[in-house]
Amino acid sequence: MSLFADSELTRDAFLGGRLHLLQPRHGYRAGIDPVLLAASAPARAGQSVLDLGCGAGAALFCLAARMPGLTLWGVEFQPAYAELARRNAEINEISAHIVTADLTALPAGLRQMAFDHVLANPPYFRPASHSSARDTGRRLALGESATPLADWVSVAARRLAPKGYLHMIQRTDRLPDLLLACKDSLGSVEVLPLSARPGRAPDLVILRARKGGRAAFRLHAPCILHEGARHTADRDSYTASVAAVLRDAAPLAWGRH
Amino acid sequence: MSLFADSELTRDAFLGGRLHLLQPRHGYRAGIDPVLLAASAPARAGQSVLDLGCGAGAALFCLAARMPGLTLWGVEFQPAYAELARRNAEINEISAHIVTADLTALPAGLRQMAFDHVLANPPYFRPASHSSARDTGRRLALGESATPLADWVSVAARRLAPKGYLHMIQRTDRLPDLLLACKDSLGSVEVLPLSARPGRAPDLVILRARKGGRAAFRLHAPCILHEGARHTADRDSYTASVAAVLRDAAPLAWGRH
Repeated sequence: MSLFADSELTRDAFLGGRLHLLQPRHGYRAGIDPVLLAASAPARAGQSVLDLGCGAGAALFCLAARMPGLTLWGVEFQPAYAELARRNAEINEISAHIVTADLTALPAGLRQMAFDHVLANPPYFRPASHSSARDTGRRLALGESATPLADWVSVAARRLAPKGYLHMIQRTDRLPDLLLACKDSLGSVEVLPLSARPGRAPDLVILRARKGGRAAFRLHAPCILHEGARHTADRDSYTASVAAVLRDAAPLAWGRH
Repeated sequence: MSLFADSELTRDAFLGGRLHLLQPRHGYRAGIDPVLLAASAPARAGQSVLDLGCGAGAALFCLAARMPGLTLWGVEFQPAYAELARRNAEINEISAHIVTADLTALPAGLRQMAFDHVLANPPYFRPASHSSARDTGRRLALGESATPLADWVSVAARRLAPKGYLHMIQRTDRLPDLLLACKDSLGSVEVLPLSARPGRAPDLVILRARKGGRAAFRLHAPCILHEGARHTADRDSYTASVAAVLRDAAPLAWGRH
């Protein structure tokens, strides 16, 4: 796939206009998933962040917009998306290192680095959106990844500094595989289910794990995305805590402990 | 431990008086956990049920009270509790086979049987109740089990008929171990978190798995036990769906799908 022409791109506002991202009109487009992922990481100024499979940079730059002073690295396999991430860094005046590479074959320089945070939004297939897939990039990003989830976790674990955090968002049905993948290389695992509405089964989970963590596994109360039992004509139905993340760049609370 | 003297026992009503159980005053006493466990199993008349570690029979007899016409087997390692289970079957005019045995060394007869349902409430340590442990039976029942969770799962899997259901209740922090234990012998795993109050992290989970099941893993919306954000003087704070289980012997709904 060649690079995107400007006519193939849209420019979209995130975090209440704090961030603008060029995205392919018909390719992989960030929804709220990378925004919630980035809002989950307890990153502090001065820390380093690696986004595995960063795409156009949604998660990485959402985190940067919320917390200035981070050192930002992104790895993206598809050159067109990596180039988009570089352009998005420029547009938003964010300094970031975007590396075009397969995450299982990182360049030697990256393989010698250790990060305080790793973010990952591995591709997942969602039937509703898959049916309208229009290009290879989108199929790659939404379809089953060529890279097994266990590899995403093990690469993340190897790149984390001691006590560093992995945050990964994934379909709920992959949770057993994710937990198994974490078993030998990460600890202090926590899971935040994301439910579309109160009482609904969560379609997605965010997994948090720490390198060298020894705390017991924790499952949090679900984060409810939308108010009310069903969709209404009012499209602006986000719950207060989610709206604060999406519009005000607030961190995402992981519930009472 | 010798058998319980009558003076050591209380007689307690369950399921709105549909069931009465003799229980040791100071030993392991059934709370709502085995009641919710039994309410989760979709058992139908004519099917067979094995309760691993049945204690005085709370889960097994709650299921029997809700669904007549089941063939009931219980295995209990501690002779005093096994004897109590036999007495409780008599009191409630329930026909059940209670076997005194270590679950990892079942008698040959049982090892040739296959069940439609297996229930298990493996012991778990809960700090608040552990501090008042008064006898060996209670310590055994509430403390860390001598039998690893993986053995509970593998024994259950071996005793299940094709498409048979395991239901197990356990502390949430053991969920990764439980899922790992199910990986090779069971499928169609579902998890129902049990949360004390809305928005609280679930302390317990009920795991459902099927022998030969091939459906994707599912995490359900939590079952909320109590109304309201905190405990009030009103002790009768169960949510409607939980109250229906506890008082009316209703099945426990596992959420919208």
